[in-house]
Amino acid sequence: MNDAYFHPQALCASTNVGAGTRVWAFANVLPGARIGRECNICDGVFVENDVVVGDRVTVKCGVQLWDGVTIEDDVFIGPNATFTNDPFPRSKVYPESFARTVVRAGASIGANSTILPGVEIGTGAMVGAGAVVTRSVPPNAIVVGNPARVTGYVADKADAGVPLGDDVVRSPGGMALGVGGASLHDLHVAKDPRGELSVGEFGRELPFAPARYFLVYNVPGRAVRGEHAHKECAQFMICVHGSCGVLLDDGRSRREITLDRPSRGVYMPPMIWGTQYRYSSDAVLLVFASHHYDTEDYIRSYDEFLKIVAGEPMPA
Amino acid sequence: MNDAYFHPQALCASTNVGAGTRVWAFANVLPGARIGRECNICDGVFVENDVVVGDRVTVKCGVQLWDGVTIEDDVFIGPNATFTNDPFPRSKVYPESFARTVVRAGASIGANSTILPGVEIGTGAMVGAGAVVTRSVPPNAIVVGNPARVTGYVADKADAGVPLGDDVVRSPGGMALGVGGASLHDLHVAKDPRGELSVGEFGRELPFAPARYFLVYNVPGRAVRGEHAHKECAQFMICVHGSCGVLLDDGRSRREITLDRPSRGVYMPPMIWGTQYRYSSDAVLLVFASHHYDTEDYIRSYDEFLKIVAGEPMPA
Amino acid sequence: MNDAYFHPQALCASTNVGAGTRVWAFANVLPGARIGRECNICDGVFVENDVVVGDRVTVKCGVQLWDGVTIEDDVFIGPNATFTNDPFPRSKVYPESFARTVVRAGASIGANSTILPGVEIGTGAMVGAGAVVTRSVPPNAIVVGNPARVTGYVADKADAGVPLGDDVVRSPGGMALGVGGASLHDLHVAKDPRGELSVGEFGRELPFAPARYFLVYNVPGRAVRGEHAHKECAQFMICVHGSCGVLLDDGRSRREITLDRPSRGVYMPPMIWGTQYRYSSDAVLLVFASHHYDTEDYIRSYDEFLKIVAGEPMPA
Amino acid sequence: MNDAYFHPQALCASTNVGAGTRVWAFANVLPGARIGRECNICDGVFVENDVVVGDRVTVKCGVQLWDGVTIEDDVFIGPNATFTNDPFPRSKVYPESFARTVVRAGASIGANSTILPGVEIGTGAMVGAGAVVTRSVPPNAIVVGNPARVTGYVADKADAGVPLGDDVVRSPGGMALGVGGASLHDLHVAKDPRGELSVGEFGRELPFAPARYFLVYNVPGRAVRGEHAHKECAQFMICVHGSCGVLLDDGRSRREITLDRPSRGVYMPPMIWGTQYRYSSDAVLLVFASHHYDTEDYIRSYDEFLKIVAGEPMPA
Amino acid sequence: MNDAYFHPQALCASTNVGAGTRVWAFANVLPGARIGRECNICDGVFVENDVVVGDRVTVKCGVQLWDGVTIEDDVFIGPNATFTNDPFPRSKVYPESFARTVVRAGASIGANSTILPGVEIGTGAMVGAGAVVTRSVPPNAIVVGNPARVTGYVADKADAGVPLGDDVVRSPGGMALGVGGASLHDLHVAKDPRGELSVGEFGRELPFAPARYFLVYNVPGRAVRGEHAHKECAQFMICVHGSCGVLLDDGRSRREITLDRPSRGVYMPPMIWGTQYRYSSDAVLLVFASHHYDTEDYIRSYDEFLKIVAGEPMPA
Amino acid sequence: MNDAYFHPQALCASTNVGAGTRVWAFANVLPGARIGRECNICDGVFVENDVVVGDRVTVKCGVQLWDGVTIEDDVFIGPNATFTNDPFPRSKVYPESFARTVVRAGASIGANSTILPGVEIGTGAMVGAGAVVTRSVPPNAIVVGNPARVTGYVADKADAGVPLGDDVVRSPGGMALGVGGASLHDLHVAKDPRGELSVGEFGRELPFAPARYFLVYNVPGRAVRGEHAHKECAQFMICVHGSCGVLLDDGRSRREITLDRPSRGVYMPPMIWGTQYRYSSDAVLLVFASHHYDTEDYIRSYDEFLKIVAGEPMPA
Repeated sequence: MNDAYFHPQALCASTNVGAGTRVWAFANVLPGARIGRECNICDGVFVENDVVVGDRVTVKCGVQLWDGVTIEDDVFIGPNATFTNDPFPRSKVYPESFARTVVRAGASIGANSTILPGVEIGTGAMVGAGAVVTRSVPPNAIVVGNPARVTGYVADKADAGVPLGDDVVRSPGGMALGVGGASLHDLHVAKDPRGELSVGEFGRELPFAPARYFLVYNVPGRAVRGEHAHKECAQFMICVHGSCGVLLDDGRSRREITLDRPSRGVYMPPMIWGTQYRYSSDAVLLVFASHHYDTEDYIRSYDEFLKIVAGEPMPA
Repeated sequence: MNDAYFHPQALCASTNVGAGTRVWAFANVLPGARIGRECNICDGVFVENDVVVGDRVTVKCGVQLWDGVTIEDDVFIGPNATFTNDPFPRSKVYPESFARTVVRAGASIGANSTILPGVEIGTGAMVGAGAVVTRSVPPNAIVVGNPARVTGYVADKADAGVPLGDDVVRSPGGMALGVGGASLHDLHVAKDPRGELSVGEFGRELPFAPARYFLVYNVPGRAVRGEHAHKECAQFMICVHGSCGVLLDDGRSRREITLDRPSRGVYMPPMIWGTQYRYSSDAVLLVFASHHYDTEDYIRSYDEFLKIVAGEPMPA
Repeated sequence: MNDAYFHPQALCASTNVGAGTRVWAFANVLPGARIGRECNICDGVFVENDVVVGDRVTVKCGVQLWDGVTIEDDVFIGPNATFTNDPFPRSKVYPESFARTVVRAGASIGANSTILPGVEIGTGAMVGAGAVVTRSVPPNAIVVGNPARVTGYVADKADAGVPLGDDVVRSPGGMALGVGGASLHDLHVAKDPRGELSVGEFGRELPFAPARYFLVYNVPGRAVRGEHAHKECAQFMICVHGSCGVLLDDGRSRREITLDRPSRGVYMPPMIWGTQYRYSSDAVLLVFASHHYDTEDYIRSYDEFLKIVAGEPMPA
Repeated sequence: MNDAYFHPQALCASTNVGAGTRVWAFANVLPGARIGRECNICDGVFVENDVVVGDRVTVKCGVQLWDGVTIEDDVFIGPNATFTNDPFPRSKVYPESFARTVVRAGASIGANSTILPGVEIGTGAMVGAGAVVTRSVPPNAIVVGNPARVTGYVADKADAGVPLGDDVVRSPGGMALGVGGASLHDLHVAKDPRGELSVGEFGRELPFAPARYFLVYNVPGRAVRGEHAHKECAQFMICVHGSCGVLLDDGRSRREITLDRPSRGVYMPPMIWGTQYRYSSDAVLLVFASHHYDTEDYIRSYDEFLKIVAGEPMPA
Repeated sequence: MNDAYFHPQALCASTNVGAGTRVWAFANVLPGARIGRECNICDGVFVENDVVVGDRVTVKCGVQLWDGVTIEDDVFIGPNATFTNDPFPRSKVYPESFARTVVRAGASIGANSTILPGVEIGTGAMVGAGAVVTRSVPPNAIVVGNPARVTGYVADKADAGVPLGDDVVRSPGGMALGVGGASLHDLHVAKDPRGELSVGEFGRELPFAPARYFLVYNVPGRAVRGEHAHKECAQFMICVHGSCGVLLDDGRSRREITLDRPSRGVYMPPMIWGTQYRYSSDAVLLVFASHHYDTEDYIRSYDEFLKIVAGEPMPA
Repeated sequence: MNDAYFHPQALCASTNVGAGTRVWAFANVLPGARIGRECNICDGVFVENDVVVGDRVTVKCGVQLWDGVTIEDDVFIGPNATFTNDPFPRSKVYPESFARTVVRAGASIGANSTILPGVEIGTGAMVGAGAVVTRSVPPNAIVVGNPARVTGYVADKADAGVPLGDDVVRSPGGMALGVGGASLHDLHVAKDPRGELSVGEFGRELPFAPARYFLVYNVPGRAVRGEHAHKECAQFMICVHGSCGVLLDDGRSRREITLDRPSRGVYMPPMIWGTQYRYSSDAVLLVFASHHYDTEDYIRSYDEFLKIVAGEPMPA
């Protein structure tokens, strides 16, 4: 344990603190804790034994890391952010094992936020200051409020997920979205006194013939759906009533589209990480899928998806 | 003009009154009128010149048939029912030609109803007493109120259009409806805290692979849609939001289904006369069609449809 | 058949027309009809055979009385009012028997109204001009519209059914309503930040201890309930949500009360003819009854009720 | 009474029938009636004594004109249209005097409509077929339904009262409407995250400095307001919440504007007959007036307004 | 003060710390504080002078106990939970006396929650992590959110307060709920086109004749009512409109029932601690009581109730 | 640095701490910090370098003051209140400069609240315990919740901002409000079956003739508008639909009025600091202004306004 710095008023019983890490006044690190390199453990932080902290992590004043908490690399934890490890605490009553909380690489935990036990904060996610996180946070999601809900996603730095306006030109092949081969399609509408009719012909306006359709509805406002990619299956999505937000991510750039009319569709080819959220209470999302259901076709871990996109070999 | 009976107090200048027809007291038939056989023209009825009345028609007291009115066979016209032939009447101002009103075979016009100029009352339709008919009435439809709207369809006498209850068993091939090869399908639903998902696989739960879909929405409550049959094209209908009524008619029997959930579909094979109405204000009807759009595939006249079903040769 | 007057242009084959009755030009009375005394049968009226008309009845121009119609004494029938006797008319198709329509003594039928077959228009009722009456009309009720609905009751001439305002003083014994021993009670309300509480003690604020309660709810807006009197049973009514109108009638005077708050009750002693209507869609009416249910305790005919109140002997 | 034609089956005891008028079969005109020139009294019409009919009036079959009815020149009365003269008819009970009903010059009464007693049908108004008219109808108004409500106004033949679309260009002096000096003004709007602000400066965007403002609100949907002109006072109207229709009429042409946003105003100079109707339930109409209130400034009779516009001298 | 443990970096000026209690690094206990036995006072906790802490209390890191705070036995206080003692703090302005905050025995205070001054946290209550408690919390209640509201009650460990489903069989004597003699009753409903009627006869379906009724309505959504037991008086509750939750507690087991239809009642015999909450905004709760109002019959302290149930002698 | 007190366990590297200030155990003040006189820096507080603290400031336990935070005189900061200085924190990623947060004189920051970076807490404002402050807080405003919104204003101690009840007497000159020359006006209302009309004559009921009007609408519920004073221009405000709160402040006393009807206006003479908030979603505020728009007439800083009212000379 060379190269780590300890303030004279700091307490540290652990011998597992990485090089370049600094531990400041009135902090207290118990012997079982493992802390990576180049971390900053500020005044008054308390770290229990069954805790793992990665490299380049910042833990601001007034934070405690309890047994069961894992912090991956490059995480920021704001001042007075509060972790927990018992969902139903009673004095002198201990659970058989503590709930495990994981903060994935690159995430940030806002000042004075509260993290309920057992949740996972996804890669790159941003927990707003003062948020009370009661369920897991998707990768790159931004959550705020009490209880915390997803209000957006961290935008692609280059292009940025600016929602498309009403001025999208209707084009037969759709408008490329700059995320993999995804495209936005405005479909033909016929309107007369008896109502409106929107129509699409498969293999013409729509880029494939469907093997399956499904309808998603009665979605609670704060629910987040999708959160997977397909290896082979393409999808075409239309929000036929109400509205929802669709986030497309090819592992390199991200873009968010609001679907809010029966005549607007999004084509999502394979190998796009898709997320749907911000469902209005009356939303009905119609999805056409190019293949029948096949559980093998799903990639359900964003970290795994990133690895595949990056060309990393997958474990057998 | 033998065999017709004229009450001594009746006036009849027409020589075109069929055998068995009776004309009662204080009625007045002008010379140009043509009246078929076995009709009953009651007290005080007035018939202008440019009027054609079919066979076996009943015209009750207090009715006038104005220039431009055509009454086909077997029609019943209730007492004080009132026809019109000028949509914007002004005294001493005459339209270039009178609007033409047609009452198709077998229809009934309720007592004291009002028929606006230029409408067509479809075959077998029933206009309720006191109704004010401001637009054409589909075949077999029942209309009531001011203005009149479709509230139902005259039921098949044998089976009767009793709507199906909630107790329909979900069966892979659907439940036969007794109208041509039409069937009702309850599709699989998966429900979890993030909402509901209803799914159908084409060629499995759904009897055909679609070449086209369309969405119908923003339908005014009183609008009636469909009202045609297809020669080749099959359809599968799901009301994915709100509700609507679907009427199926194979020319022999009729049945009405209420579609009110995303997981319920109706399969409508070719040569079914289909009508949709009673749309809720938030209804969205999703239709899969087995063929691309082809205007030649449509039969748009119910009378023509009946003839084809009956095996009558069509005019070239 | 002396004393009846017949216009020279009138047709009358019946010999059953009472003294003082006049039949005007172009009217036509068939042989089976029976018409009472001092009636006025105006121009163009048509009376079929199976028809009974009481005394002092006025039938204005353009009216037909079909087989199956009974008109009691003192009825007024406005011009072009239209009766019917077949609920589903088809030309040349006759029902086994015609629906019977009865207009009770003293009722009035508005001009150009339409009376569907088989209904009963109650004693003293008033059908508004242009109304389309699709169901029976309670005694003394006023109905208007298409379809017709009860909008009020013919007021007592002396006191008049003026609804009570908000200025009713809360009094322990209630405020006498001038209809039998009925009274209006404003009950104690306690209000605090947790809500409101209205309370009544039986035998104190409420004049009897209940043997039974019942709740009436989900009442369609146009429904009329009650319409009976009790021989022994007293009732106390509170509209605990929404609002409804309560009509009290002791056979001599009538009064209408709007119940629209949980703290307002009406005490209705025995031998009051009670009617409730104008239910708001969210109305819940709570009724306390002084006796257990006993079908013998009900008087369900208003005419019978009037006779009992008048002291007439009832048939065994 | 030369030149009038009477069908052999007509009855006419009046000697007050104008030249060129025809009375057809089974009609019956009582001795006190006065009928103008070139009228057409069709089959079965009944005209009582206390009735005045103007010139060039058409009365179709099945109509009765009761004591108290006045029909001005050029009126059309459709078949089976029904008048009344007693608001609460009871057999053998007669009102002290009959309610007086007036149909103003050039109006049309639709087929089978019902006219309640005592109403006035305004100059040029159009009562739709089957309507039940329960209150007076403004000049040129179109009414339909049961009860009848104003749904529009008879359009100016030349320009026609086509509502203006959203494409009105914002111009400092407003857009001339072609009705007197009236103009439409789209005012400046500033919008930011704290809401919207619409502003007008008097003497700049608005053509006068106000002496008075008034707010109109809680207007029942079927109410019609305004219906007067000012001799001196100019007005500027903005519907600041909800929407309403504004009809402007300079006695020569008419135009209707829908006001539906806080930034749209109508300038109405003196000597315009203004009518407001089709208020949404939440409408608030803000009016600036150039003068203080002065009852002498009002012209409340449309017929008087027409005479002033036409330059006719007014009675002292 | 033997047996208590003090970390070398802890400050403790109080001599009133119980045996087995541990005080950890950077904690600071002022001289006036009294702390019971076997407590755990974690890193960085600050305890002022006018503070009483019971036995077996856990106080996690980052908590301050200010003057005026009382913590009873067996309480858990999560990390960074924050107490207050001045409702309107201004620097250098001190209230005459500090508001007193009491946390009753066995309660838990969630991590990072905020407790406004002067509230009482009831016996066994559970304050959720991140909650902001602005008013007192009932015994055993669970509160979450900002501001905190009651979302449930800590369930009985044995049976658990699982809400009853729709499958409750209607039985004359009701269904026993396993909490004292409480029972659930589904009452008879008669339904016809005029609406629904639910009825109960006292002494038959309902187990007692009422001396009193009361109606509770206009209850704010977050209000909690009841919270008392009766010594003698029985109650029967029906939510006649809307819905509410009823919690029954006999001191040994608890159960929660949702009342949401006029035909469902709960019988609550004496010596049941009853709580009603989760009122819908349109809820109306009807309660029949077996006795007239008697303030002596109420037990308003849950702790007192528990003692009576346990057979402890009450103070005179 | 004489006269300041430092607990033996406190760390303080700054030499810029004022007389009378106390720094308690486990606090840590870095060398660049400047702290005024008579402050109280409690246990465990951390003060970074680029921080300025005024006189008589209280900082309770568990608070950190980061680089970029300025605290003016007489501020209270409750325990565990948490400041921030990076709106989008990532570990090891630093903004070019830290956001600056200012807490104005006399404000209080509630316990465990969270202050987002870059906001300004206005003079005398009160941030509620547990609030999450995401935008600047107006002078004297009270904010609570997550996110925090204005729920009221700190009342004038003498008169107190008690909202006026419905019992305000209508008086020609309005009712003086005790804030400068402001007055409340109840205007004349005429009500008839066609709706309501509220009217005001300029120079009579309204104290000035307007040069300009403006309409404010579509205001988000939590928006606060106004927040300025005029040197010359007077205003008259009417909330013509919905409701809003109007706060008037002459620098000496404050009063809040709820405007909730078209007939109630507030006259606000020059040199009143006016704030409008608590807009209902359907609110439309009509404002008459005595002068045309002039940007020089606005005072937009409350602190500047207070100085002008106090007669202090303004900087050139």
